[in-house]
Amino acid sequence: MMTLWGGRFSGKLDQLAWELNASISVDKAMAEEDVDGSLAWAEGLRMAGVIEEVEFKSISNGLTTIKHEINQNSFGYSPADEDIHSAIERRLTDLIGLTARKLHTGRSRNDQVATDFRLWMVRRIPLLIDDLNNFQKVLINKAEESGDSIMPGYTHLQRAQPILTAHWWMSHFWPLERDKQRLLSLFERVSVLPLGSGALAGNPTGVDREFLAKKLGFSHISQNSLDAVSDRDFTAEFLFCAALIGTHLSKLAEQMVIFTSTEFGFFTLPDEFSTGSSLMPQKKNPDLFELTRGKAGTILGSLVGFLTTLKGLPSTYDKDLQEDKSPVFNVFSSITLILPVLGSAIQSTAQNKNKMESSIDSFMMATDLADYLTEKGVPFRDAHESTGKVVNIASKMGLELGQLSIEDFQSIDPHFGQDLFNWLSPHGSINRKNSIGGTSPSAVKNQITKAKLLINGEKENG
Amino acid sequence: MMTLWGGRFSGKLDQLAWELNASISVDKAMAEEDVDGSLAWAEGLRMAGVIEEVEFKSISNGLTTIKHEINQNSFGYSPADEDIHSAIERRLTDLIGLTARKLHTGRSRNDQVATDFRLWMVRRIPLLIDDLNNFQKVLINKAEESGDSIMPGYTHLQRAQPILTAHWWMSHFWPLERDKQRLLSLFERVSVLPLGSGALAGNPTGVDREFLAKKLGFSHISQNSLDAVSDRDFTAEFLFCAALIGTHLSKLAEQMVIFTSTEFGFFTLPDEFSTGSSLMPQKKNPDLFELTRGKAGTILGSLVGFLTTLKGLPSTYDKDLQEDKSPVFNVFSSITLILPVLGSAIQSTAQNKNKMESSIDSFMMATDLADYLTEKGVPFRDAHESTGKVVNIASKMGLELGQLSIEDFQSIDPHFGQDLFNWLSPHGSINRKNSIGGTSPSAVKNQITKAKLLINGEKENG
Amino acid sequence: MMTLWGGRFSGKLDQLAWELNASISVDKAMAEEDVDGSLAWAEGLRMAGVIEEVEFKSISNGLTTIKHEINQNSFGYSPADEDIHSAIERRLTDLIGLTARKLHTGRSRNDQVATDFRLWMVRRIPLLIDDLNNFQKVLINKAEESGDSIMPGYTHLQRAQPILTAHWWMSHFWPLERDKQRLLSLFERVSVLPLGSGALAGNPTGVDREFLAKKLGFSHISQNSLDAVSDRDFTAEFLFCAALIGTHLSKLAEQMVIFTSTEFGFFTLPDEFSTGSSLMPQKKNPDLFELTRGKAGTILGSLVGFLTTLKGLPSTYDKDLQEDKSPVFNVFSSITLILPVLGSAIQSTAQNKNKMESSIDSFMMATDLADYLTEKGVPFRDAHESTGKVVNIASKMGLELGQLSIEDFQSIDPHFGQDLFNWLSPHGSINRKNSIGGTSPSAVKNQITKAKLLINGEKENG
Amino acid sequence: MMTLWGGRFSGKLDQLAWELNASISVDKAMAEEDVDGSLAWAEGLRMAGVIEEVEFKSISNGLTTIKHEINQNSFGYSPADEDIHSAIERRLTDLIGLTARKLHTGRSRNDQVATDFRLWMVRRIPLLIDDLNNFQKVLINKAEESGDSIMPGYTHLQRAQPILTAHWWMSHFWPLERDKQRLLSLFERVSVLPLGSGALAGNPTGVDREFLAKKLGFSHISQNSLDAVSDRDFTAEFLFCAALIGTHLSKLAEQMVIFTSTEFGFFTLPDEFSTGSSLMPQKKNPDLFELTRGKAGTILGSLVGFLTTLKGLPSTYDKDLQEDKSPVFNVFSSITLILPVLGSAIQSTAQNKNKMESSIDSFMMATDLADYLTEKGVPFRDAHESTGKVVNIASKMGLELGQLSIEDFQSIDPHFGQDLFNWLSPHGSINRKNSIGGTSPSAVKNQITKAKLLINGEKENG
Repeated sequence: MMTLWGGRFSGKLDQLAWELNASISVDKAMAEEDVDGSLAWAEGLRMAGVIEEVEFKSISNGLTTIKHEINQNSFGYSPADEDIHSAIERRLTDLIGLTARKLHTGRSRNDQVATDFRLWMVRRIPLLIDDLNNFQKVLINKAEESGDSIMPGYTHLQRAQPILTAHWWMSHFWPLERDKQRLLSLFERVSVLPLGSGALAGNPTGVDREFLAKKLGFSHISQNSLDAVSDRDFTAEFLFCAALIGTHLSKLAEQMVIFTSTEFGFFTLPDEFSTGSSLMPQKKNPDLFELTRGKAGTILGSLVGFLTTLKGLPSTYDKDLQEDKSPVFNVFSSITLILPVLGSAIQSTAQNKNKMESSIDSFMMATDLADYLTEKGVPFRDAHESTGKVVNIASKMGLELGQLSIEDFQSIDPHFGQDLFNWLSPHGSINRKNSIGGTSPSAVKNQITKAKLLINGEKENG
Repeated sequence: MMTLWGGRFSGKLDQLAWELNASISVDKAMAEEDVDGSLAWAEGLRMAGVIEEVEFKSISNGLTTIKHEINQNSFGYSPADEDIHSAIERRLTDLIGLTARKLHTGRSRNDQVATDFRLWMVRRIPLLIDDLNNFQKVLINKAEESGDSIMPGYTHLQRAQPILTAHWWMSHFWPLERDKQRLLSLFERVSVLPLGSGALAGNPTGVDREFLAKKLGFSHISQNSLDAVSDRDFTAEFLFCAALIGTHLSKLAEQMVIFTSTEFGFFTLPDEFSTGSSLMPQKKNPDLFELTRGKAGTILGSLVGFLTTLKGLPSTYDKDLQEDKSPVFNVFSSITLILPVLGSAIQSTAQNKNKMESSIDSFMMATDLADYLTEKGVPFRDAHESTGKVVNIASKMGLELGQLSIEDFQSIDPHFGQDLFNWLSPHGSINRKNSIGGTSPSAVKNQITKAKLLINGEKENG
Repeated sequence: MMTLWGGRFSGKLDQLAWELNASISVDKAMAEEDVDGSLAWAEGLRMAGVIEEVEFKSISNGLTTIKHEINQNSFGYSPADEDIHSAIERRLTDLIGLTARKLHTGRSRNDQVATDFRLWMVRRIPLLIDDLNNFQKVLINKAEESGDSIMPGYTHLQRAQPILTAHWWMSHFWPLERDKQRLLSLFERVSVLPLGSGALAGNPTGVDREFLAKKLGFSHISQNSLDAVSDRDFTAEFLFCAALIGTHLSKLAEQMVIFTSTEFGFFTLPDEFSTGSSLMPQKKNPDLFELTRGKAGTILGSLVGFLTTLKGLPSTYDKDLQEDKSPVFNVFSSITLILPVLGSAIQSTAQNKNKMESSIDSFMMATDLADYLTEKGVPFRDAHESTGKVVNIASKMGLELGQLSIEDFQSIDPHFGQDLFNWLSPHGSINRKNSIGGTSPSAVKNQITKAKLLINGEKENG
Repeated sequence: MMTLWGGRFSGKLDQLAWELNASISVDKAMAEEDVDGSLAWAEGLRMAGVIEEVEFKSISNGLTTIKHEINQNSFGYSPADEDIHSAIERRLTDLIGLTARKLHTGRSRNDQVATDFRLWMVRRIPLLIDDLNNFQKVLINKAEESGDSIMPGYTHLQRAQPILTAHWWMSHFWPLERDKQRLLSLFERVSVLPLGSGALAGNPTGVDREFLAKKLGFSHISQNSLDAVSDRDFTAEFLFCAALIGTHLSKLAEQMVIFTSTEFGFFTLPDEFSTGSSLMPQKKNPDLFELTRGKAGTILGSLVGFLTTLKGLPSTYDKDLQEDKSPVFNVFSSITLILPVLGSAIQSTAQNKNKMESSIDSFMMATDLADYLTEKGVPFRDAHESTGKVVNIASKMGLELGQLSIEDFQSIDPHFGQDLFNWLSPHGSINRKNSIGGTSPSAVKNQITKAKLLINGEKENG
């Protein structure tokens, strides 16, 4: 067992306790960040005169070799490595000898692991934003591909009003845009250097923390060492952002599952993104969308698990915090796997325009009839009531609204005239929803233009 | 039963179903926002030529009367009111007659309730930030009040290194500062106008949505009507921010509970903020801190409950969303009650400086001894090991480190010299932690200065 | 402020702190249980010789009066009542004078509140089981009402195999049966008397706890006073049972929402259990089912909130536990409101048998074709593959399976003979699933018989 | 890619989609259960005449070989295996050729995986109960080892009343006893055979399900095929049981962390179960207890994640359910690792009897003084108030209660006599708490006797 803390102890850690305690299987994902943090720290120590130039060179060379080994997947772990920090220091000692034992001067694993973890996240958030951007592009593609095709819009899963299919695709663009904004807000709160906070009280070495921040690419420096070593707000916030991304993808997935059912039949999945049944030869299942929903639950659970742990902490740094990395790494893997899969699946989904358009029945223009009456001066509440009665009559007679006679209409409200029949066109209904964010073709065109600007704009900054 | 949708129905809603469906007991908290939203909408309708100037005047006068009634708590609810929107429209009809029936033209409860809810939050977030600011001031006060007094710093609830008491108080300042930053980020995502999105597809009235946004004080306008009526990201994000605030207060509370125990004895609660036992006459319990911990759990539960609901939504707007307001209103009440109570309790807590200082034993300077050795050129790892052995020996002999002889020290490492005993002073240990964020008096002074700037700076903007 | 613990304190509790601390608004729901617990305790004290017979009579009369007042809703609360225990003791003092001050001998609010809460639950679980029973009866009714009508069975929301509609209804019976079993298991763990545990260490009065248990109707007696005053496992377990009930109702609700959509059209809601839209006159929304889904999320949140609080407790009894009752009372109200509403709604839902039957397309009998081939000696995997090819061909030709020629079939597998066409009947497919739990009419009949036995059997014991 | 459903598909599943879809990395933990399930199914098929005796022999031999390979860890997985079912069928085909293709007749992966998973749990619950039993034995050992030593009992982490140390240890026994009861209740609900339910509608083979249940050791048979393939209540219930076990261990761990702090000093951890600091040579940290707290949060998160997924399911079987096994397997591993580690750590923890006893100050006998007064005929409320005043006076004078003069006492209540001083003995206080579950030595002795009976009794049945 390679530990960094054995001097005071006469007994040896129990083997099962060791297993419970060790974090190497998880934290080796941050191997590169650990090396980079140590490189910066070594340079800081040199600048502060704590180690000699020649010692720094030796440490720096050793760490560079280790980084290369990590990148080549040739770094050798030992079963006795307690964590990634111990593993790397062990290897450094192999490579450069006793000078390695000077590296940890003034540093604690408490500020070291916080630095590694933040650095890991600072480097991953842009990748996640890229994946979101790419997914959003698919949605824009589908919107443009659907042209001026129309479909029923739903509330309560009941047919409500006709909408442009492009509008529906774009309704899934904006939640992801908010997700990106949330990640960018979070980024500022992650990009804070904890290194130099020691175990809890700060460090006595005189290392220049502003240099460290600059070297490692952090925008800010922590202002309180007690807080710096135990702050895991960014972990919780990352998991929350992920839980909302999961929720948004789950909601899209849920709609895809419904819209690819035989009964709705709006979309058809390609074989490459469907799976079958071991028993029923005719089945073509939207498993990927269902897995997306399932994963969203799991991600939410990760958030809750960590928040619960965080809530129970009694002091500055407690070992409970070791539960912080596993959920983040797992969640990051899940989402960055789901996004491209789902994106490709949606990209190759066929849109059954006829089925969508033919699912718009005349009752979906009932609100338009009410609008018609208000144009004739009828107060909206009365217009709503009258139209409700019209719907009721047609419904009982088993007729579409356009099949009622003008007399039927006028028996309910004399303001109805022959021109009412023009208001039963779905396209007319859609065209009238012409304000910002509405479903009219021109409003949707503007919407897509803005969306494209956001995608491209962020790409430059992200 | 006053409903806005009865025309099409021949049956009457079942009484128990009505009870389950009605939201008035909860959403009346947004009565004022509902009126303001309607005032803006009415003006928008007038500008678009949908209603006449005189109609607008009448509606405007009626709504102003209603707002007055709400503020005077004299607005009369009817058991038949389904929700706050229906209640207000009912009252408006009482006041101004049939013109009231024109107000809902082009609007749906879907965009109306989203507008009310966002407006409510836009107005409450600054209040919450104020409460946080005030609480932070208490922490700064306590830090300044504690002067240069010192206490043990803990990790794993084990004595670690001596720290300035002021540093400990300030360690609870920064998490709340991040909470405020999160609320400010959220504010931008709340301040988005959904009004004009209709039920789901937009509105056909030609109302100027930019005017509506300006009138109601929203910074942004929603870009997709389907998304606008169902987006509750801001609800989840508010609950998440609240859950972290709860977690931070809980962590402080947990430490206060431990530090006011007889065994620690660092703080003494005043009677005004303690409660007793119905059985044990001597008890003086820190109930408020325990309730804070308990409420933090409940708040976290509110977040989870709503996220779970959100994750399950199948379409644009579904009635599941009615579960959105109750948790937000409850959580807001909880936190804005806890913050001033806890602030006052902490303000009047006595700091037992002698007890704190006398709890710093010499072993807490073991790291300083290791630092001493590194200054003598010993690599840190070796210094750590040697000091570990010193600790072990003293511990077994039942002595403090300063009670060992110089020969004891030198038997372990010959680099130890007589000057080592200077390094056993807690104040010396503290003074050496002098980098940004460290616990030295000058570093803490700088920290407090920065904290004050933030408090005052934000007050201007918040 | 009426407190039971003021003697030791010189200051007065701060007003806001009082508000945060007081629990009367919640715990008055247990007023009757508190009186019953005190009646038993008083009798125990008399039997142990701690109070005189005449004192007991006086206390007993006073408490009986109070119980009457509570039942008549005429019990007067004072703004100064801290909790229900204080309120009742205050009133008892009003009624009988100083003797009331003897009632709390040897008792603490810690064991008192645990007793009240458990008693409350012991009395409510049977009511909840009754509600579940009644709901299950509705499901059996619908199953019987649907007779031999058939519908598509789904997996992945894709048409899978034809099933008896009664089988679908009954699939929602069994989860609720498990819920009842869980509640009965829980009942045993709730029915444990904590009274006599004092604040934490037991009581010195010699009161016979076995008498108390018998008097109050508890089956067991707590065996460790420290555990007894802080055990809230039963609270968490109740919330978990409720969360699963919520989940089961949500799943049924989700299916009802989908099956009442125009596209599926299997069921039609009556007006009495639908709501409309303030904007769209034609809408008839399944709000009750959506609210059920939403409430299920909220209930889950209540479980999580309380579990999180429970996880953080540091000692025997801590005030955090005051957060235990509000979620339980709210959840109980929610579920006992939802069950009868949903039950009535489902009872009056119309089943559109033609639509259901006509939604069974021939592809749903593909597995039957594979079964046909296995009967001819083809290994199932090969039969599955061959049938998959048949499906593929028909699908590409836009034909139902029955529209293919026998040559088409035999080109894929020569084992196909003319009799294959008999295997395309949905009723045949259903009849063949004849083992226990299968969808054949006779298996479903047996299922319903067993279900009825359970309902009636439990009614006797519950 | 080895799939069981390829016939109908012309495209190939996308590679990333494959990765997202495959479950082999998780479900191979059920390899043995899958083989056992297939063995029973094959025998059922033979008995029903679906396959020949010779075919059954061949299948049976093949599966037995596979089981051997699994147990020897020599079973070879292929990257193309989608799940454990496919892997085993692939291997079976390698071993016995085409006959293997008959095994899946009438079966679906839906009932197969449900069978495997339940079988896995039926076999693991007894192991978990054994671990709990062993842990409880450690608690009994510690209780007996602590003899008649005494310690302060706490509520609100404030000293409350003196208790027997054995009573404190035993207070952690009973929660785990309830956990075992919950697992036993759950066991009945897990031990239900789903096999024979097909994909959703039952099976047409005539296999005797009662035979299957008996063969596989299930106590019950599922009664509705739709429910049987999608019921995961047992998964949620297992995770809930685990979350409460985690909570109980976390609460014990929290108390151990506090009681091993220098300030409390009641217990000392041995080196074998402590860890040190990489920076501070003197630190000896209770990491194992902190990890236990942390894992409890993670386990709770697993419960929430799965419940959230479960709540969102729209139909019978949906692929979301694939998220069911990973949390269960992880949680089982966590708990069965924590229990022995924590048990060993506690077993070897030293009890510092002197420190515990000397922490009992005289104020902890204030309730005894009140009891003294009630024995003199003073109503308890008055006795409580008077004693509160005594405490207040002593407290202000900085004296222990026994240091006050008899005149001091009598100035507050004339009922005080010289014999009051006898009531200030902690042992006397403890001895008086003599009812069932109280802290007196004889009551605790009875408690331990009952506990031992439970441990041994359950061992026979478990």
